[in-house]
Parts: sequence; C-alpha cells; structure tokens
Amino acid sequence: MEMARPVLHHRESEFIDVLAEVRDGLKYLFQTSSEVIILAASGTGAMEAAIANLFATGDRALVVSGGKFGERWGEICRAYGVEEVPLAVPWGEAVNPSDVASALARDPSIRGVCVQACETSTGVAHDVRALGEVVKACPDTLLLVDAVSALGTMELLPEAWGLDVVLAGSQKALMLPPGLAFLALSDKAWQRAAQATLPRYYFDVLKIRHDLEQNDHPFTLPTSLVVGLREALRGIRAEGLEHILRRHRKLAEATRAAMRALGLALLADKAPSDGLTVVRVPEGIDGARIPKLFQELCNITIVGGQDQLRGKVFRLAHMGYVDTFDVVTMVSAVELVLQRLGYPLQWGAGVRAAQEVLAKPID
Amino acid sequence: MEMARPVLHHRESEFIDVLAEVRDGLKYLFQTSSEVIILAASGTGAMEAAIANLFATGDRALVVSGGKFGERWGEICRAYGVEEVPLAVPWGEAVNPSDVASALARDPSIRGVCVQACETSTGVAHDVRALGEVVKACPDTLLLVDAVSALGTMELLPEAWGLDVVLAGSQKALMLPPGLAFLALSDKAWQRAAQATLPRYYFDVLKIRHDLEQNDHPFTLPTSLVVGLREALRGIRAEGLEHILRRHRKLAEATRAAMRALGLALLADKAPSDGLTVVRVPEGIDGARIPKLFQELCNITIVGGQDQLRGKVFRLAHMGYVDTFDVVTMVSAVELVLQRLGYPLQWGAGVRAAQEVLAKPID
Repeated sequence: MEMARPVLHHRESEFIDVLAEVRDGLKYLFQTSSEVIILAASGTGAMEAAIANLFATGDRALVVSGGKFGERWGEICRAYGVEEVPLAVPWGEAVNPSDVASALARDPSIRGVCVQACETSTGVAHDVRALGEVVKACPDTLLLVDAVSALGTMELLPEAWGLDVVLAGSQKALMLPPGLAFLALSDKAWQRAAQATLPRYYFDVLKIRHDLEQNDHPFTLPTSLVVGLREALRGIRAEGLEHILRRHRKLAEATRAAMRALGLALLADKAPSDGLTVVRVPEGIDGARIPKLFQELCNITIVGGQDQLRGKVFRLAHMGYVDTFDVVTMVSAVELVLQRLGYPLQWGAGVRAAQEVLAKPID
Repeated sequence: MEMARPVLHHRESEFIDVLAEVRDGLKYLFQTSSEVIILAASGTGAMEAAIANLFATGDRALVVSGGKFGERWGEICRAYGVEEVPLAVPWGEAVNPSDVASALARDPSIRGVCVQACETSTGVAHDVRALGEVVKACPDTLLLVDAVSALGTMELLPEAWGLDVVLAGSQKALMLPPGLAFLALSDKAWQRAAQATLPRYYFDVLKIRHDLEQNDHPFTLPTSLVVGLREALRGIRAEGLEHILRRHRKLAEATRAAMRALGLALLADKAPSDGLTVVRVPEGIDGARIPKLFQELCNITIVGGQDQLRGKVFRLAHMGYVDTFDVVTMVSAVELVLQRLGYPLQWGAGVRAAQEVLAKPID
C-alpha cells in the first residue's frame, strides 16, 4: 500500500515529481485547465477558502440550504461578515433553478450563489448545470459548488457549465483517508480572488497557486496522502472518468431499485445523487439502532441522519472503490438489519432487484 | 504499520475510542490539563488559528523575528489586520528576554508576544521560560509559542512557565506524516478566545473544544493520521517525556561535538536547539550541493537554508525516531559529502567526537 511507504519529506525531489503528476491528475479529475488548489484540510477548509478569497465584508451571498452542508455555507458566510441571503429548500428536495434566477433578479447585489452538487446529508443532487446557466448571465455573481460527495460520482463540467468554484476532499470518490481538500476556480473566480480583502493566510489561493505552479507548496503538505493521491488519480485516469460516472450511476440505480423493492422510501426521491442513497426509516422502526446493527451484524459502517434527520434516515454510500458485490452485500445487510428490527420483508427481494440492474452491462 | 489499516470512518465507535485516548495522550505530551485542540492542517494552520482566535483587528502584537517562521507570525498578523510590532534578532541568535520586557514596558497596548520555542530555519532555541516570566507580569498580554520543532525535543511547561499558546504539528517529534496540528491554550488564552471577533470557522477553537470534550470533532479528521497519532503517543508515554528530552539533548550534543571536531561552525552557537543542528557551510564550498549529495551518496534527506540562509547553511534534524546510530550515520554522511566537495577533513574525526558523547549513559 503506497501510503505505508517511508514518509517523504515535502522538499525532497521525489516528492516534487509526485506533486507534478498530482497537479496534472487533478486537472483531469476536475475537468479544468486551471491550477487546482491543494489544501491540507478537510472539505470545510475548502469551503472557508472559497468564502475568504472571493467575498468582502458586507457582500451578499445567496445560500441554497437544504441540508447540513448547505447550512454550513451560511455559517461560514456569517463568520466572515458576508451577508447570507438564505434560499431554503426542504431537506430531501433539490433547489428549483428558477427560484435562484428570481432571487438574483430581485437582488442584483448578490455576489455569489453557494450550493452543494450533492448534499451529503440528504443525498440530493442539485442541478448545478442549470444553476450555471442562471449565474453565467450575471457578470458579478459567482457560483460556488461544494462537490465533496459529487466529484467522481456525477458529471461536472466546470468550464462548460460555468461553475466558478468546484471543491472537494480526499476521503470520498478519491478513496483516500481524509486530510486533503481541493478547489478549482474559473477565470471569473480568479479575477475576484485578485481583489480579495477578507483575512486569510493558510487558505490564500493566490499564494498557493503561485507555489504549485513551481511544483511547490507554501505549507507542509501531508506527504503520505499526496503519494496516495497520485495512486488514486492514476487509477481514475486508467478507468476513465466517463466510465467511473456510468459505474456510479449503475450502482446507484441498483441501490435505489433494491430499496424500493423492499418497500422503503428514498428521501431524495426526485433528485437522487449517484454517490449515496438516503433511505427513510420505515414507520415503527428505531432508526438510531440501524447504524449500530450494521456494525454489529455485518461489520459495515453506515451513517444515520444528522440534525433534523436524526433517527429518520440511514445513508448508504456507493462511491469510490464500491463495486457490484459491495452493493449486493450492502443491500443484503439492509435486509438483515431491518428484519432484526421487526420490519416485514421477503428475504432477498432487495438483492434480487439490485441484481437485475447490476446484471446489465455498464452502458 | 497502524496507518496502513483500513480507513476508519470518523463517526465510527472505534474511532471515538481512538480520539478519547489521543486527547489524553496530547495532554501528557503538552503537559497541560486543558483540552488540546486538534486541527486537520499543517503547523501554519495552528499559527493562524492562534492569531484568529486571540486578537482583534487593530490589536498590536510583538513579533520576535529571527528566522523564516518568526517572519511567518508577522505575515499572519498582517493578513488579519493585527499590527505587528517587530522585534528583529539576527538569524542564528536568540531574543534577549529583557528586550521583550522593554518593548512591553514601552508599549502597554501590546496584546501578545509571538515567538518560536525553536526557530526551525536557524536551529535557535528561544528562552520561552524566561519570556513566560516577562509576559506573566502583563495581565492583558499573551505569549504565543510556536513549538513545531520544539515539542518533544525541549522542556516546555506551559502552565508553570506561563506559555499561553503552545502549538505543534504531527510531522516532527511525533514522527508522523504531516497533516495534523495542535494548540494548547492557557486559561488566560481561553478567556481571550471567548471574546474573539476576527473571522474564523474551520479554526474556531471554542467550537472544536466543545466537540472534542464529547470525543467528537466538528470537521472530518484525517482518521489514519489520528490512529497513527495514538500509536506515537503510546510510545511517548512508554518512554516517558523526561527520558525523551534527555535523549534528544544527548543526540544534539553529539551532533554539535561532531561538527565542531570537523572544524565547522554552528549557526545557533549560543542558543542551539536540541531538535536540529544548523551548520554553516564552510568558506569556498558550494552549499546548494550539500542536500543533493546527501541524497545521492547517502540516501539521506536533509534540507539547506531558506531565504537569506540559502546556500549558507545545512540543517541536520535529530528529533523523533532518531537514535544513537542515526547520529553516527548522519555525521559520517557529513564527512563523506564535505570531503567530496573539497573540504579538508580527517576521516572519522566527527564520528569519533559524536561517539565520545554517545558512549555516556543518558543522564
């Protein structure tokens, strides 16, 4: 395993070669020609970097909030004195792009729209392509897309679609431990960054870009993770991004078909993401016990709902290394766990539905 | 190797146990009874967290600047609108505590003193114990100590000495890859943090403390590194901090004796740190080639000087896992490399001097 090799020093020539290859691989993964900014931080650090580099005190930002991570955009804006104009959508639903268009038409002073490509707390995929069309028409407004659980699981074409910031972390589709975060900025965003006035140092994207262009970084990077990242990016290029996205689509469809066959309702029924499926806990079942039983009975880690969804949903991830048999195993585990909790089901009904989808070739 | 195990999810119960043990181990390492803040960042992130949580716009901070990391304190202050009152000392010398006392007496509005316990760019150990005595007398002034290369290599007693912030990273004495940073705050610093007004979110120490106290963290931690950290902290407790410090002292003395025996001058001759030794490049030798030859001839990574010391020094680290034979090897490599570059030396003179020190028991 690459990450178990001796720790490289971040000024070593071997590490400089790694960084050069990683820079290239990130441009491919993010489908951008611009330098992808690397941070030693979690995804939240990248969200904060986007706000701190692209807004000024008193600026107004439209925040699409339909889950925990949408709310986080609002919290970061408030921490920086950026005025949040909230656009609340019910948890489990996607924002209507025409609502964003109306909000921007009503208030031309809005300098940015903050959204998730996939809201990890609800499993909703917001239509960032349509949002890009809306925001493109506003020369002084940026579209900031948190793609932590979307990158590598759904199509994202920042340059064609007009996504001004696309950010992600190392721990989801890249299949690495957490600890690295990334931001890809559009030309429009880089121009805004050049005028930035909010305090920032560790997250200063201009300084980081300057050093990365020389295969260096102003701050000590987690070298082991960067070496692991090179391997992950090689794997992504070898499989090809298009194939990866189609694979995720199929795994997601299989999971959704399985849950429906078990009579379960999906939280994000109308706009489900292909990276994770969020399932409503059926009436009369103690939702808090579901993740615990997954661990105890099946040694599988899943997470439950957060905040207002606590006890009401469970979340099945199918991104990164997950493949056909992982989905079969996971669906089979859902059957085992729910049966144990007293939910009436026909053994194998979910697995059968998943298999029917999985048996088809990846188109 | 612990870090090569399957990646733990950060909400998994096994990880919660790891975090509980790590919190305890960090209190021991930092010699504090207060919660040690954990950040997914490099040491610079912890420096920024200290400034962003403890100062307000327009506050004045006395910055002891005698190297690259001292200068970094100043850069972060300026990025946050904190007015830097520079106290420059020549690179290679330690600050005179009475100069700090005079500066504080002259300007009672100074709200903090920023210093390195060990300035990694020069190998100087500043006398933070004496600085603690000076700053203790000023109720509205905090002492911020960057201990990135000092923690675990020199004695630091924050509570007894009045160090209000002690910060470090995972990649030096903790012997881990980079990616985690830590801050220990005094009661005086926690009181200041409660009144903080500068923008911060990812680095908000109050929010992080609140969650850590429940064995949780508001942001996704690099789980593999935290698992590795538990192992490192177990090792530190098993060896005992006092023994670790005495071991480092002896390795440092052996290295310094070896360099002097080779006729080489030490940059930090009067106040050398026990974590690294910075050696002046002798007259007529091309200093830029030294790190390259270490790599090529000996497969050992060392770093040269930065900024104004570029080409003028080379830096020998002897912290963390380094033990007797590592020092012997390193000194022998210095002889090989310098001889190759045309420096006149008697083979083995450095190694002999090191061995004479190393042969004595750790007292």
